[in-house]
Amino acid sequence: MSADQLLAKLRSTLGEKAVVTDPDVLDANRNDEATFCAAGVPLVLVRPGTTAEVQEVVRAAGEYGVPIVTQGARSGLSGGANAIDGCILLSTARMNRVLEISVEDQVAVVQPGVVNADLSRAVLGQGLFYPPDPSSWEMSTVGGNIATNAGGLCCVKYGVTGDFVRGLEVVLASGEVVRTGRRSVKGVAGYDLTQLIVGSEGTLGIVTEATLALRPAPEAALTAAATFLSVEEGVAAAAAVMASGLRPSLLEFLDGPTARAIQNYRDMGLPENVGSLLMAQSDRGPRAAEDVAAIAEICTAHGAAEVAVASDAEESAMLLEARRLVHYALEPLGTTLIDDVAVPRSKLVALLTGITEIGTKYDVLICCPGHIGDGNMHPTVVFDRSDPAAEARALEAFGAVMELGLALGGTITGEHGIGKLKRQWLAQELGPVGLRLQRDVKAAFDPQSLLNPDKLFL
Amino acid sequence: MSADQLLAKLRSTLGEKAVVTDPDVLDANRNDEATFCAAGVPLVLVRPGTTAEVQEVVRAAGEYGVPIVTQGARSGLSGGANAIDGCILLSTARMNRVLEISVEDQVAVVQPGVVNADLSRAVLGQGLFYPPDPSSWEMSTVGGNIATNAGGLCCVKYGVTGDFVRGLEVVLASGEVVRTGRRSVKGVAGYDLTQLIVGSEGTLGIVTEATLALRPAPEAALTAAATFLSVEEGVAAAAAVMASGLRPSLLEFLDGPTARAIQNYRDMGLPENVGSLLMAQSDRGPRAAEDVAAIAEICTAHGAAEVAVASDAEESAMLLEARRLVHYALEPLGTTLIDDVAVPRSKLVALLTGITEIGTKYDVLICCPGHIGDGNMHPTVVFDRSDPAAEARALEAFGAVMELGLALGGTITGEHGIGKLKRQWLAQELGPVGLRLQRDVKAAFDPQSLLNPDKLFL
Ligand SMILES: Cc1cc2nc3c(=O)[nH]c(=O)nc-3n(C[C@H](O)[C@H](O)[C@H](O)COP(=O)(O)OP(=O)(O)OC[C@H]3O[C@@H](n4cnc5c(N)ncnc54)[C@H](O)[C@@H]3O)c2cc1C
Ligand SMILES: Cc1cc2nc3c(=O)[nH]c(=O)nc-3n(C[C@H](O)[C@H](O)[C@H](O)COP(=O)(O)OP(=O)(O)OC[C@H]3O[C@@H](n4cnc5c(N)ncnc54)[C@H](O)[C@@H]3O)c2cc1C
Repeated sequence: MSADQLLAKLRSTLGEKAVVTDPDVLDANRNDEATFCAAGVPLVLVRPGTTAEVQEVVRAAGEYGVPIVTQGARSGLSGGANAIDGCILLSTARMNRVLEISVEDQVAVVQPGVVNADLSRAVLGQGLFYPPDPSSWEMSTVGGNIATNAGGLCCVKYGVTGDFVRGLEVVLASGEVVRTGRRSVKGVAGYDLTQLIVGSEGTLGIVTEATLALRPAPEAALTAAATFLSVEEGVAAAAAVMASGLRPSLLEFLDGPTARAIQNYRDMGLPENVGSLLMAQSDRGPRAAEDVAAIAEICTAHGAAEVAVASDAEESAMLLEARRLVHYALEPLGTTLIDDVAVPRSKLVALLTGITEIGTKYDVLICCPGHIGDGNMHPTVVFDRSDPAAEARALEAFGAVMELGLALGGTITGEHGIGKLKRQWLAQELGPVGLRLQRDVKAAFDPQSLLNPDKLFL
Repeated sequence: MSADQLLAKLRSTLGEKAVVTDPDVLDANRNDEATFCAAGVPLVLVRPGTTAEVQEVVRAAGEYGVPIVTQGARSGLSGGANAIDGCILLSTARMNRVLEISVEDQVAVVQPGVVNADLSRAVLGQGLFYPPDPSSWEMSTVGGNIATNAGGLCCVKYGVTGDFVRGLEVVLASGEVVRTGRRSVKGVAGYDLTQLIVGSEGTLGIVTEATLALRPAPEAALTAAATFLSVEEGVAAAAAVMASGLRPSLLEFLDGPTARAIQNYRDMGLPENVGSLLMAQSDRGPRAAEDVAAIAEICTAHGAAEVAVASDAEESAMLLEARRLVHYALEPLGTTLIDDVAVPRSKLVALLTGITEIGTKYDVLICCPGHIGDGNMHPTVVFDRSDPAAEARALEAFGAVMELGLALGGTITGEHGIGKLKRQWLAQELGPVGLRLQRDVKAAFDPQSLLNPDKLFL
């Protein structure tokens, strides 16, 4: 059967406007934010508005044997939403409604295309809190967050996206709809397919609705920040904060190269010889001031060169500014390859030392910001893409960081996922039996391999 | 091939002492605490001491086509560990070592047969806290807790067993070993098979090792307790506590019939006309006193008849005594069938009203204690087993409670699992597509259906 027949079918079921074949639009939608990652040329971009329309698309795709790549906001960092040649790009952009916010049950029911920040603001308006807060929260969608099990700044206290997913509506590769999970807090009826779909990067099913757990909104957070002359001191201070039972609602780290890049981008008063920078928050309302003072003390006790404590929300935001500038400060320096290793906290010094050695060995700049409270770092290889030799060295360094993470008992990805970018390292992390088991699960859900088939596995 | 050959093989690989065929011992090990649930006659009970020995048992079982039922402490309440005719009972009792406690990484690595309380005490000795605390913690094993995703009293604040499982070592039906998950806090490499094994009731694999997350130990908790003349007031007070952001570390409920049964069992000064009883704890150290006072105030504002607040750990334990006596107070009244429905909190009054109606309709006593903060209740049908008519009515009431839970948008099981007892209601909760998907997952893991084959599915 021909592509034209498929397009005609899609147009007749979804309507002309929801079926896009304009080459410019297709080209603009071929890839996510892992710009370095190869992307194919899609056949068509569809924008279904309902679960039933998603089912129609999947059934048509099955009939014509055409793969489907689901796309949220395409803010992903591993090529998970990248097009496959001849595929259907299925955008959830039109399914962007918050269907319900229940104050009593502390849940929200949403469509997948809702932008994280829109949901967060909507529930805040009712005195509630949706904790998952990837830095991309102003653009990324809840569906994408679920499909990648996105983390964020506050997971050190509250957990990741999956910890807030109670139940899902999912369109399967067969075109059938399944509801997994529950609305109640607890539930153990059968296998936990909800958490299996979470983080499955569009390869097991298309999320068309989610029931999310909310919490009472905390008060505004206060911030403490500290600079250290060495990496070791900053890491030790972070470990001490985590051991203290203080439960910071944010604990972020910047290494020396990252801090210097930020200082060059905008004068934040960071000294040239800074070895590491730690930022922490507490959102425990009346106790927050006490908490950040205690954190500041821990930093001082661990040899901090300078410590600052905010006394209100405005000062807090200022102290966090450096963290927010990372993305922009690195951009002018070159193309970036962002690693996402997570290691047990006891291995953080070994990780950071090893990263410096890798930078030296491959002669590339590696800046290392990270969610240090969770041991999840983002070593970022910065290089000149117009120089093929530099690019080759950058790729080797990128891989070497993952090997190092694995050697230290960690994982190659703490929150960004495998996508297309890290497929070759997945086998190494999972081992042959684990990899086969994962493929068996994929086959059980999607025997025809219709859903995002060139992702996760090589 | 004969059973004798299988036994000879087991003896030669595990040693004589680890292979038990004494009929009395076999009989004593045929079932868990769901005594009402049918159990078959096992062929043999094996007690492997290592992962390699578990592999040998599974391989032998596969060769001879004999099913395996894994058993922890057999404290389960749904027949999940019940024998199947001619099966191998695989007890994890000898694999009971805590392999590692890491203060720095806040993790413990344990064998599956470790008793929950032994682990909890061991980590407390290092200033750490393993939150999952099923009431059976002095007997149940961590392996059993993982396989049922056990809840407990403190999940209202800390979450259930699965929330503390980072990684697993699992022997698959093929006899192969797989390691899932991670030791680091975060990790999203591939599908989350760890959470798929959690709650799988011994049907997907045998857990032989677990890496568990720990937290810094909180201070001793303080307790508040309140009696109400009606169910509605107690439920409303519980809802207000949950909405308040106070984060109690325990929030338990007893309905009138349960409170009266306890009062008859031991004089706790509970008035005859008690409609409901609420118990709450806070473990926020210096703030606990403030918290329980605030909870007491909420109870008073919601019409509590009597409110008591403990000022120290001893008084706290006394106030919780009623909760601890439920099991013993109901025992003399008859045989019990324990439901485990969980509903969205907004449906609790409807659930409790409905349960009273079911009790009247089927002329049985239903006592309803529960983890009210999570909406997870344990309506317990008490009946005289020597009276077949009463037994028949009790079974109908038991099922009617599950139907009610489902009708209210809840689940038939919040923490005890499906096992053998609730298989016929699972299909109703999951629907045909969900059920088929679950079976497909089972088939992907265990194509020969060797592992606990008569559990979960009919
Ligand atoms: C500046 C910046 C900061 C970032 N910060 C963070 C951070 O702090 N933490 C973090 O974890 N990530 C972060 N990211 C990465 C990215 O934002 C997250 O991975 C996010 O969850 C992706 O959401 P999305 O809507 O953009 O999904 P997309 O990129 O469109 O898709 C991501 C994956 O999910 C699948 N998918 C999307 N929607 C669905 C659906 N409805 N059903 C099934 N599959 C679906 C896609 O097929 C793809 O595999 C950041 C990215 C940027 C650019
Ligand atoms: C008095 C009492 C109070 C209770 N309170 C609670 C409570 O508060 N919360 C709660 O959730 N439950 C409670 N329970 C139920 C029970 O204690 C839990 O389900 C517990 O998790 C079972 O652990 P176990 O070691 O006894 O497992 P078992 O009963 O031996 O087995 C339970 C299931 O797990 C499987 N299994 C066991 N070990 C493994 C393994 N290593 N690998 C794979 N599968 C395995 C078995 O095949 C079976 O399906 C209570 C029970 C009693 C009797």
